[in-house]
Amino acid sequence: MDPIRRCVQALSRLPGIGEKTAWRLTWWLLRADDSIVTEIAAAVGGLQGSVMECERCCTIATTSPCKTCSDTRRDPSIVCVVERPQDIQAIEGSGEYRGFFHVLHGSISPLDGIGPDQLRIRPLLANLDGVKEVIVATDPDVEGDATALYLHRVLKPLGIQVSRLAYGVSVGTEIEYADKVSLMRALENRRLL
Amino acid sequence: MDPIRRCVQALSRLPGIGEKTAWRLTWWLLRADDSIVTEIAAAVGGLQGSVMECERCCTIATTSPCKTCSDTRRDPSIVCVVERPQDIQAIEGSGEYRGFFHVLHGSISPLDGIGPDQLRIRPLLANLDGVKEVIVATDPDVEGDATALYLHRVLKPLGIQVSRLAYGVSVGTEIEYADKVSLMRALENRRLL
Repeated sequence: MDPIRRCVQALSRLPGIGEKTAWRLTWWLLRADDSIVTEIAAAVGGLQGSVMECERCCTIATTSPCKTCSDTRRDPSIVCVVERPQDIQAIEGSGEYRGFFHVLHGSISPLDGIGPDQLRIRPLLANLDGVKEVIVATDPDVEGDATALYLHRVLKPLGIQVSRLAYGVSVGTEIEYADKVSLMRALENRRLL
Repeated sequence: MDPIRRCVQALSRLPGIGEKTAWRLTWWLLRADDSIVTEIAAAVGGLQGSVMECERCCTIATTSPCKTCSDTRRDPSIVCVVERPQDIQAIEGSGEYRGFFHVLHGSISPLDGIGPDQLRIRPLLANLDGVKEVIVATDPDVEGDATALYLHRVLKPLGIQVSRLAYGVSVGTEIEYADKVSLMRALENRRLL
């Protein structure tokens, strides 16, 4: 195929990038320095084979255990459970949290056939030594609520406090895109389940 | 560098893609099939060395002369002058035009130090055999107007009719993004300069 059309077609596969934007990006690339084009191609290609799931927190990282799980200055008595790896960044950015994380890779959604077994809940249960509190930082939607309730039901009998981010995060926003201040409030005001 | 951050940094260089979007794309790529990631990397990398400027119309293409310039069914008496290669697609998309094209790679803008010599005007003047009309399809802005007037001044003495796209294209819109119907009107109602 014509390399220009091939590039447009490939870029159109990215989320939120339609054909018009793909053309715009392609024309930009055609006029850009060779070094920039090489770097973008190499950087995208470089993602392959270089990332893995952390054996401990299940995030996507370049090492296993990941950098966060290897950080001995963190408080081992507290684990923050999130839906997606990118939610970790958002919560770290609030500067308010110094515990560990666990990534579920989704939330409970019976309509989509996603129950607890489809999420990384078993690895969470296998890593609870010394954990006193689990903060559930799932999205403020039905699936996030269902997931929080499920974790509460499972963890409470083990003597672990389960709290949830306070709704300082505006309803309808995904954790990943929440602003830092709202996230700070939400961490401060987390409530026991 | 960490391959994840490297990818975010590389994608952030694309126009209209900030750090947040670059992270979103990178997380998507991390979860995508290897084949998709390979294809995107290869398609971007494949742009290099495979494109050139057409010796005739100065567009960016994979052959020289380009496909359009090699199309013998086109009317050789008429040339449509555009600012950018992507404008050709937009005008072709109107289905109204069957002549040849010429790409200036910009428009006259004294404030930016861009005069006629910085544009591909000389190759245009060298390819006027049998040309009876030049349609100037520059953007409807000050620079586009200045370019049209300049071409009129240069081409009129050679006995070539110079016309300009009618302002069916709404002022403030760039040719590249105009809708097909407006472009059709603009071609129909082009006016002699």
